[in-house]
Amino acid sequence: MGENTTTIEKMISKLLEEKKFATLRDVMNTMAPADIAIIFDSLPAEKMPVLFRILSKELAAEAFVEMDADLQESLIRVFSDSELKAVVDELYVDDAVDIIEEMPANVVKRILSQTDRDMRKMINEILKYPDDSAGSIMTTEYVSFKPDMTVTEAIKNIRRSGVDKETIYTCYVTEKDKKLIGIVTVRSLLMADDDDEISKIMEENVISVNTLEDKEDVANKLAKYDFLALPVVDRENRLVGIVTVDDAIDVIREEATEDIEKMAAITPTDKPYLKTTVFELWRARIPWLLLLMLSSTFTGIIITHFESALAATSVLAAYIPMLMGTGGNSGSQSSVAIIRGLSLNEIEFSDIFRVQWKEIRVSVLCGLTLAGANFLKLVFLDNVGVAVSLVVSIALAVTVFTAKFVGCSLPILSKKIGFDPAVMASPFITTIVDAISLLIYFSFASMLL
Amino acid sequence: MGENTTTIEKMISKLLEEKKFATLRDVMNTMAPADIAIIFDSLPAEKMPVLFRILSKELAAEAFVEMDADLQESLIRVFSDSELKAVVDELYVDDAVDIIEEMPANVVKRILSQTDRDMRKMINEILKYPDDSAGSIMTTEYVSFKPDMTVTEAIKNIRRSGVDKETIYTCYVTEKDKKLIGIVTVRSLLMADDDDEISKIMEENVISVNTLEDKEDVANKLAKYDFLALPVVDRENRLVGIVTVDDAIDVIREEATEDIEKMAAITPTDKPYLKTTVFELWRARIPWLLLLMLSSTFTGIIITHFESALAATSVLAAYIPMLMGTGGNSGSQSSVAIIRGLSLNEIEFSDIFRVQWKEIRVSVLCGLTLAGANFLKLVFLDNVGVAVSLVVSIALAVTVFTAKFVGCSLPILSKKIGFDPAVMASPFITTIVDAISLLIYFSFASMLL
Repeated sequence: MGENTTTIEKMISKLLEEKKFATLRDVMNTMAPADIAIIFDSLPAEKMPVLFRILSKELAAEAFVEMDADLQESLIRVFSDSELKAVVDELYVDDAVDIIEEMPANVVKRILSQTDRDMRKMINEILKYPDDSAGSIMTTEYVSFKPDMTVTEAIKNIRRSGVDKETIYTCYVTEKDKKLIGIVTVRSLLMADDDDEISKIMEENVISVNTLEDKEDVANKLAKYDFLALPVVDRENRLVGIVTVDDAIDVIREEATEDIEKMAAITPTDKPYLKTTVFELWRARIPWLLLLMLSSTFTGIIITHFESALAATSVLAAYIPMLMGTGGNSGSQSSVAIIRGLSLNEIEFSDIFRVQWKEIRVSVLCGLTLAGANFLKLVFLDNVGVAVSLVVSIALAVTVFTAKFVGCSLPILSKKIGFDPAVMASPFITTIVDAISLLIYFSFASMLL
Repeated sequence: MGENTTTIEKMISKLLEEKKFATLRDVMNTMAPADIAIIFDSLPAEKMPVLFRILSKELAAEAFVEMDADLQESLIRVFSDSELKAVVDELYVDDAVDIIEEMPANVVKRILSQTDRDMRKMINEILKYPDDSAGSIMTTEYVSFKPDMTVTEAIKNIRRSGVDKETIYTCYVTEKDKKLIGIVTVRSLLMADDDDEISKIMEENVISVNTLEDKEDVANKLAKYDFLALPVVDRENRLVGIVTVDDAIDVIREEATEDIEKMAAITPTDKPYLKTTVFELWRARIPWLLLLMLSSTFTGIIITHFESALAATSVLAAYIPMLMGTGGNSGSQSSVAIIRGLSLNEIEFSDIFRVQWKEIRVSVLCGLTLAGANFLKLVFLDNVGVAVSLVVSIALAVTVFTAKFVGCSLPILSKKIGFDPAVMASPFITTIVDAISLLIYFSFASMLL
C-alpha cells in the first residue's frame, strides 16, 4: 500500500520506542491523513493507541477515516468512551456511515452511543437506502440557501456553518418544503455583486439524481458533467443529500475493479488483495472454477463423440488447443470491449444491431487473416497435407466468426434481461465457443477427410 | 452515448427545420454542455454550424470541449476565422491542448493563428511534455498568491482574475522565483479573518507531483488524498501548473479501460467503441490473435509428441479442454487480481513473496477441491476407471498450482523490468500454462497408464 513510506515507518517506530512524543507530534503534523493511515497499518496493535493519542483531534479523525475497517475496529476496541466521542464528533456523516457499515453489531452500538442526536438521525437516514444506491453514498451535510438571500448573507451563512459541511463549493437553493430549485457555486458568489439576490445568480437547470439511482450511474453522471458534487433528491424533488466527487472517484475505481474481477471469474470483494485471507480468496474463486470445469464437460463429450474421427486422423487432436484458444481470445476481445462500453454508458441496448454488424465485419477480417496465416503454416511448415489444412483453417474462420458474434451479443442481451454483463464475459463465452468450434471442426473433418 | 436524449434530439431537429431559432436558443440554454455535445453528435454535418451559432459564446465553447475530435474538426472546418477565435478565446488552456493534440496539422495551424500570444505560449509549454506525463494533462491557469497578502487582498485577487482560471477553490502560494511554498483553499479563506496574512493560514505540507510523473500515478495520488487539484512542479520545486480532479477522473477511467483491453489482448485505442471503424478494430485485435495462435503451436507440438499415448488411451483427449480451460481460468484469476492491485498501487514489487505465498496456499486449496470433485465425477459419472481418473485429477491439481503461481508472479516481475503487467495477463499466461499442463498430463499418463 502506498509508496515511499518505508523509511518514515521505521523512523516513527523508533521515535515511539524512545517515547519522543513531542517530536512525534511535529512529525505527524507534516503528514497527510492518508499517509498517517498507512503508518498505522504498519504498526503492531499495541502501539496504535499511543500514536493515535498524539494526533490532534481533527487529524486523528481524518486519519481514522482513511484506515481499513479492521484497523478502525481494533482502534475502537481500545478507545475510551470520550476518545471515541472525540473521533465521532469530527466525522462527516457519510464517513461515519461507511465505518458503521463495516463494523460488527456491538461496535456499531458503541459508536452510536457516542453520537449526538442529530448525527444519529442523519446516519439512520442514510443507512435506510439500499447498497449501491445514490442514497447510500450521499452525505446530508451540505450548504443550502433560501432564494431571497443576498450574496453577502450567503457568504455569511457559509462562514458560519461551512466548517461542518463536506463541501462548501457547491451550495443548494431550496424552497420552504426543501424542494431543490437551484445551484450556486462559491465561484459565482465571489464573482457576483454583494447585493445580488441568490435567485438571480443561481443556476436553475439543475442536474440531480434520485436517491435510489445506481451509484455507478451517479458517478458516471458526475464525471460526464465535470461536477464537484451532485444533489440527491427524492421523488418529490426534495433535496435529501449530495454526492461529492471524492466518493464518486471511489465508486469509479471500485466498479472498474469489480468488472475486472467478474471478467476473470472472481466473485468481487471489497478488500484489497493483500488484506484478503487465503480462505476468502478461495471462496471468491472456487465456485466459478467448479462451474466452468463442469461446463467443459460438454467439450469432452463432443471429443468423445468424434473419437473415431480422431483415431482415424490423429493429427486433428494437435490443433484442438489452437482452435479453442483462438476462439476464446477472439470472443473475449469482443465481449470485453462491449462490456466496458456498457459500463461507461457508451453502448446501449438499442445499439445491438450496430454492434453486431460491426463485429460481423471485424470477425470476417480477423477470420480470413487468421485462417490464411494458419493455412500457409499447416501446408508449408507442418506438412499435414492440403485436406487437413483446409479443414483446420475453415473451422478456424467459422470459430472466430461465431466467437465474436456470441461475444458481442451476450453482454448486451444479458444486461437487457437484468443480468450482469461482466459475469457473461470471457469464461462463459469461451465455454460456449469451445463447444461450437469443436462441433464445427469435427463436422468438417468427418465430411472432408 | 448518453441517455434520455433521443426525444430531445428529434425535437431539436424539428425546430431547426422550422427555423425557430429563438425557441432553439431558449431550449439549448436549459441544457448542460455535455448534453449539447450529444445533440451535435446526432445531427447531420450541414446542420451543425447553424445550431452552433445559436449558442451563447460561453456555452458554445463549453459544448465544443465536450465533443469528439472528429466533430470538433468538422466544425472548425466550417468556422469563419472570427468564429474560431471566439471559441478559442473561451477555452481553458488544457482543453485547447487536448483539442490540438487530436487535430491534423493544417487545423492546428489555423487554431494557433486565432490564439493570442499568452495562450499560444501556454499551449506550447504544455505540448512539450511527453504523453502520459503530469505535464501533459495539467493546466497553467491557476490562482496564485504571494505569502504576504492578506485574506481580503487574496479574495479580491480571485474576484479579479478567477473568471479565467480552471479552479479557484485551491490557490497556490509562491515566492518570487515561483517556488511553491503553500496551499490555500477558498474554504480556509472564507473561514479566516479578513486581516490574516496568507502565510499564516496556508497549508505548508504541500503534496505535489513532478511534471514528468506518470499521469496514472498523479490520478491515484489525487484520489488517495481526496484533493480537488494537485500542483505540478519542476525539479526546482517551481510551480508550473495544476491537475484538476475532472481530468484525474478521465485518466482513471481511461487507464481502467486500457488495462481491461490489454487483459483481453486488444491494443488500446482512445476512441469509444461505436466511434471506432471496423478496420481500426481489426488492427487493434489481429496482431495479438496471430501471436497467440502462433504460441499455441507449442501445445500442438506437445500433443503430437505424445500421439502414441493418445492413441493407446484415446479417452485422454476428451479431458484436454477441461484441463486447459481450468488452468487458464485459474491463472487469469490470479494474474488479474495482481494486475489490478499493481494499478491501484496496493501491491508493490517488495510484496512478491507475500503474494506468492498467498497464491500457493490458495492454489493448494483450489487444486484439492477441483481435483477431488473431478476424481469423483470421472470415477462415478464418466466411468473411465480409477487409473485414468487419478491421472487426470493429479494433472489438474498440478496445473492449478502452476497456473496460479505463474499467474501471480509474471505481472509483478514484468512490472519490475519495465513491461506492462496488463499485457502479461490472461492470454500469455494461458499459453504458458497450457503448455506446462499438457506436459504434466502426458508425463503422468505415460508413467501410470
